[in-house]
Amino acid sequence: MAQTFKAGLIRVVTLEDAALRALHGKLIEQYCPALRVETKSIPDQPEGIHREETKALAVPKIIELARSFREIDVLIISCCDDPAVQELGEQLPIPVVGAGSATAALAHRYGRNVGILGITDYAPQPYQELLGENLVNLGRPEGVNGTLDLLTPQGRQSCFDKAAELKAAGARSIALACTGMSTIGLTAPLEQACGLPVVDPVLAEGLMAYYECLRTTMQ
Amino acid sequence: MAQTFKAGLIRVVTLEDAALRALHGKLIEQYCPALRVETKSIPDQPEGIHREETKALAVPKIIELARSFREIDVLIISCCDDPAVQELGEQLPIPVVGAGSATAALAHRYGRNVGILGITDYAPQPYQELLGENLVNLGRPEGVNGTLDLLTPQGRQSCFDKAAELKAAGARSIALACTGMSTIGLTAPLEQACGLPVVDPVLAEGLMAYYECLRTTMQ
Repeated sequence: MAQTFKAGLIRVVTLEDAALRALHGKLIEQYCPALRVETKSIPDQPEGIHREETKALAVPKIIELARSFREIDVLIISCCDDPAVQELGEQLPIPVVGAGSATAALAHRYGRNVGILGITDYAPQPYQELLGENLVNLGRPEGVNGTLDLLTPQGRQSCFDKAAELKAAGARSIALACTGMSTIGLTAPLEQACGLPVVDPVLAEGLMAYYECLRTTMQ
Repeated sequence: MAQTFKAGLIRVVTLEDAALRALHGKLIEQYCPALRVETKSIPDQPEGIHREETKALAVPKIIELARSFREIDVLIISCCDDPAVQELGEQLPIPVVGAGSATAALAHRYGRNVGILGITDYAPQPYQELLGENLVNLGRPEGVNGTLDLLTPQGRQSCFDKAAELKAAGARSIALACTGMSTIGLTAPLEQACGLPVVDPVLAEGLMAYYECLRTTMQ
């Protein structure tokens, strides 16, 4: 099956730098060479989505942007909050994949008790909805209020500490809850530090998008 | 990433016919061209696994067979009961993927209420463990006692009827619970008949094996 599929990908943060904007798409093309990814980012929201209000602000922009893609086989919303994923899934004739539900589903494969590690104290909605009482949530790493904090030695150490806490609390896997953690390559060192499988949101959304393309092809 | 990975795959049914034995592996190589699959089938069990006793009989054979693979990156147990998956996961230095947990995890991405469609009245253990109260189980299709029954027009119709029942009962996806359903290509026609996403066990185990290879590569 030398088939190639075309994916549209929406970044929910305004990124003027073309290379930075394309990064998630490039990672996905590496993971799944059968996917070609076209990326667009929403306008006027340089700080992205951090809480309910910024999510609400982003949703209509995402829906408008989604409609501007041409001839794609699958649409990826590269954000763990899955903003507009349900709405678009009902509106568009193609599968729509959100990073949050993709990550939660993959983590679930390692059994119950999925630890969540993100940059907010609340678990994004898809993690709550899909994992329910199987979710182990101990809040965000100390001192980490955004992805930039993850780049400091203290921020990184806070993530390692939180993962160890989650493991001690019975977590059998760690589901990352911010795609910015994929951007900075946190998954591998975190996995090595805590010894649990760590699910990377950009890898998860890419793999689920590829799965949806294969599923459609079977028909 | 033009990397290739090697997967070992165990059929839990004795298959003398080489082409039939290799079928799941060939499907997986089509879905995930980066995987090369070597297949072995357990001895002296031409009827495979149908209930607890036959599962218990198969487990030591699977464990012995697993140890005979050389230089594989991932091991796939191609059975929805995930026989020996937990034991081997603890014993081997490589990831071990079972069709059951892979299928249950992928189905979970479509939300709660996963309908199960197999050839037994009980849900195989990984479906029970991973999906718990989110599982919608209405028993096996009428008149279907094994995969051969799926090949008859009545057996096929029974599957379509059961899928419609599951949908009416609130299922948002259908998780197939027998890899024999992949063998006979039931997934696509079933999906077209019921209008719900249907998760194919061989596609699911292949994708999860590929995911595990990618995860290991990130490290």
